[in-house]
Amino acid sequence: MTGIPKRPYNFSAGPAAMPVEVLEQAAAEMLDWQGSGMSVMEMSHRGKAFMSIAEAAERDLRELLAVPPDFRILFMQGGGLAENAIVPMNLSRSGQVDFVVTGSWSQKSAKEARKYATVHIAASNEADQHTTLPDPAGWQLSSSAQYVHLCSNETIDGVEFHELPNLKALGCVAPLVIDFSSHVASRPVDWSRVGLAFGGAQKNLGPAGLTLVVVREDLLGHALAVCPSAFNYQTVANNASMYNTPPTYAIYVAGLTFQWLKRQTEGGATGVAAMEHRNTAKAALLYDFIDGSQLYLNKVAMNCRSRMNIPFFLRDESRNDAFLSGAQAAGLLQLKGHKSVGGMRASLYNAMPLEGAQALVRYMREFEKTQA
Amino acid sequence: MTGIPKRPYNFSAGPAAMPVEVLEQAAAEMLDWQGSGMSVMEMSHRGKAFMSIAEAAERDLRELLAVPPDFRILFMQGGGLAENAIVPMNLSRSGQVDFVVTGSWSQKSAKEARKYATVHIAASNEADQHTTLPDPAGWQLSSSAQYVHLCSNETIDGVEFHELPNLKALGCVAPLVIDFSSHVASRPVDWSRVGLAFGGAQKNLGPAGLTLVVVREDLLGHALAVCPSAFNYQTVANNASMYNTPPTYAIYVAGLTFQWLKRQTEGGATGVAAMEHRNTAKAALLYDFIDGSQLYLNKVAMNCRSRMNIPFFLRDESRNDAFLSGAQAAGLLQLKGHKSVGGMRASLYNAMPLEGAQALVRYMREFEKTQA
Repeated sequence: MTGIPKRPYNFSAGPAAMPVEVLEQAAAEMLDWQGSGMSVMEMSHRGKAFMSIAEAAERDLRELLAVPPDFRILFMQGGGLAENAIVPMNLSRSGQVDFVVTGSWSQKSAKEARKYATVHIAASNEADQHTTLPDPAGWQLSSSAQYVHLCSNETIDGVEFHELPNLKALGCVAPLVIDFSSHVASRPVDWSRVGLAFGGAQKNLGPAGLTLVVVREDLLGHALAVCPSAFNYQTVANNASMYNTPPTYAIYVAGLTFQWLKRQTEGGATGVAAMEHRNTAKAALLYDFIDGSQLYLNKVAMNCRSRMNIPFFLRDESRNDAFLSGAQAAGLLQLKGHKSVGGMRASLYNAMPLEGAQALVRYMREFEKTQA
Repeated sequence: MTGIPKRPYNFSAGPAAMPVEVLEQAAAEMLDWQGSGMSVMEMSHRGKAFMSIAEAAERDLRELLAVPPDFRILFMQGGGLAENAIVPMNLSRSGQVDFVVTGSWSQKSAKEARKYATVHIAASNEADQHTTLPDPAGWQLSSSAQYVHLCSNETIDGVEFHELPNLKALGCVAPLVIDFSSHVASRPVDWSRVGLAFGGAQKNLGPAGLTLVVVREDLLGHALAVCPSAFNYQTVANNASMYNTPPTYAIYVAGLTFQWLKRQTEGGATGVAAMEHRNTAKAALLYDFIDGSQLYLNKVAMNCRSRMNIPFFLRDESRNDAFLSGAQAAGLLQLKGHKSVGGMRASLYNAMPLEGAQALVRYMREFEKTQA
């Protein structure tokens, strides 16, 4: 425990806290990147300097996430919301696609996909208000699905797949598409179970405006005629993510974050495995406190609680404003819950140190005492 | 003339040089924006702090470009290349659209539009290798066109419309769409002649990854069914550019650039009018020198030469590499021409001071002497 933080702890769901070291390096290099006489913002994306930055970012990310050689890494624009259209434009072949609905994000994705494909809801946790995850053994998968979509961590509802489904074992040959926006790089990915993964950068990777797509090569080349060239995965892959001018500065900052991730160690592990140790510890600290308290409540079933996004409620909701203003005064920022859910939400992304989770629990305990 | 520059002069066509003061402020505020305890990168886009940044950016841009009240300003993602699809998806109604082809960019735009509409080439300067501009009086405009598209400054070919066509006077009631990526904010816009203007930010406005769309309200609401929600102008407008997470940091840096623009004065004018004075002087300096030299050549017709992007050639092209390496050594960066045109290109965007153009001319004169 470090006592009063030098910098407030920022629990935003995204855009979210960044590692301080990353921000410090970005600030230091703002006017002159490594003697080039240019800010990274000022570099042609086709020049040697920026090409080296982009290549290093891709290489480091491939190493961190252990992306197999038959997957391409694409740096795109538009965030998860745009990918809700871009994925079916590239993969659906205007056929049928299966969706597993587990919260606000997968629901939005399914709705958008209806513009391009026939959407079949293979499973849903709607009857449980998105507080559970449907058992894959019971999913109604179609034999003709072009892919199966799920959101592996629901940012708003706070449910997370702690194991990805093994579609092959379920008798389904379709590739699995995962929206991993809000827990990418927080834990390893089992790529043997995935065909495509996408995510906005603004939670665990870097600044908003950068979108990550990791796609198995055999899924490229089937875009619908209406797919804009700038969002055709094959075109983007063929041009090493430089078909259109990429969000260069965001790629640079994400690259600094990847370097930071590679330096992290925890529980004898490094990189993403280290983050998993730390993230597990942070989340356990907060869930254990909530479950043991009389004032706070988390509604999500134990076995599918998100390590990244922890929505919680005061049993006396008239105290919400007092809780939030006290938190702000204590240097605990952006704890307000999503408008569709209400209450509070603490996002504990990679950049949140254990001390931040400890400081939040301390504050929550103190606040609870004043309510007695 | 300031003698040896503290910082090299960067002639990149984009991403391009930024005002030093903007970079300095961004660096200073990187870890803590105005006492908020957060980097702008770390702010929720729906929080008060970032909302105030986005609102100020929009307000300042509206003032700088004198955007009329019946036009909406949208901050989007994907750059000009994505807009080549997004414009016809929003405006074409799958009907006919007219294109004026004047260079690489309008050619690309026309090609992409064919996915969504019937494209009619109303005029072209292809026979002149994109070194002229076709006289509007001779354009073959369709009576049924949903819009007329032109690129008001061709970044690669270096031709610029110094006056936008008056379509009404030509008997055409269709709205004019302009791609003003590479000269936005370098000169005033006559909005009475424009229905929609779009541009990537990475030349004159801010970092790559931010796209500006200025659109007359009556053109909203006609998107094709295949248009992704994130790129539906009506949806973006209804949500004040926050339907999907916007590129927050890029908007912030663009906002700093707008504040910088508002502080600029030149020839008794301020803001964009001041920039026009300065840009006219910078371009005249370089064109006059090129035209008077024996070594250098610009092929564009006098009346449509771009103030922003000045492609030029050495009459002895075997000296290209020597020219470029000498320039680099003299602190004159990113002067290599576009691969499709060859030779050199000097981009003189707003952030390039007169001293930069003077330094380039000095170097070119010295280099020519050594070739005698």
